[in-house]
Amino acid sequence: MPEQQRSDARRNYARILAVAEQEVAAHGADASLEQIARTAGVGSATVRRHFPSRRALLEAVSRSRIAALADRARELAGAGDGRSALLEWLGELVAYCVAARGLAAALAYDGAGADSVHENACSAPIEEAAEPLLRRAVQEGAVAEGTTVADLITLIVGITLATEQHPDPAEAADRLFRMSVAGLSPAA
Amino acid sequence: MPEQQRSDARRNYARILAVAEQEVAAHGADASLEQIARTAGVGSATVRRHFPSRRALLEAVSRSRIAALADRARELAGAGDGRSALLEWLGELVAYCVAARGLAAALAYDGAGADSVHENACSAPIEEAAEPLLRRAVQEGAVAEGTTVADLITLIVGITLATEQHPDPAEAADRLFRMSVAGLSPAA
Repeated sequence: MPEQQRSDARRNYARILAVAEQEVAAHGADASLEQIARTAGVGSATVRRHFPSRRALLEAVSRSRIAALADRARELAGAGDGRSALLEWLGELVAYCVAARGLAAALAYDGAGADSVHENACSAPIEEAAEPLLRRAVQEGAVAEGTTVADLITLIVGITLATEQHPDPAEAADRLFRMSVAGLSPAA
Repeated sequence: MPEQQRSDARRNYARILAVAEQEVAAHGADASLEQIARTAGVGSATVRRHFPSRRALLEAVSRSRIAALADRARELAGAGDGRSALLEWLGELVAYCVAARGLAAALAYDGAGADSVHENACSAPIEEAAEPLLRRAVQEGAVAEGTTVADLITLIVGITLATEQHPDPAEAADRLFRMSVAGLSPAA
């Protein structure tokens, strides 16, 4: 493939993925592939060339959002005080996990177990990226010694699972997350 | 049925159920019905007369444990300080929810959705019984105004769901529950 074509293909891929992220955020895993093609200004065939199935598209969206969350953790690692930086990032993780449930269900439907998808969605790259954020908050005394990134992620995954049937899952998850940050009954 | 037979039947039912609760606590939903009959000192036919299916037995165990939790809430409502009473009860709820997962899976397997079972397992009778416990802790300033029993139950169900695959789910759930009580980062 000549250089010009390769560079067009890369641009198309990036544009389709960016549009797909917006559509999936707005409409969940049922986002219309035709709408994605229209908004990206490409034909349906071009979308299918880059993403041969809905699953492939959803996986790419999921990978991209996880990469963005990891970038965000690295960005916040040096910003403000440790507590605010960690809590801001965890808040974004809550929002991602709420949005990702639709993705997880759609991906799980196609064979893989829901658990493995949840593990994929909230695991190694994110844990690694969040480690310095947590370490700083612990050093500043804002988070108890011995708390792990896995603890925080497990709690957030649990909160999003338990609020899935709520009329407004994002609001319910955020509310429970704030309660856990403040403590159900912190005074000893 | 003459009075004597009715009273024998009631005694058998209570004995089988008590043994079944112990067996299910020890071995989960796969508890052996034959072992239950042996320990209760009755024949398999007697077990089957009271509980025609494994599902019927597991439902009875589940109902009985929920009733015990509700009794426990009423018992604790007047005991000690409000915070300790509430936290002790919530700790027992965590242990119940961890143990109930096996029950829930077994019941769900037989037709009903896992969600509806979880709702059954942790809902109306428990919420009602726990209300005075929570109210007292809020009045004593140990729990934030506006916290609901449903909040606490949802958080605990979430924690038990998210720790299901952990090598030691009871320990992992208890750990996350304690973190949520103390607060991930309570200082403002």
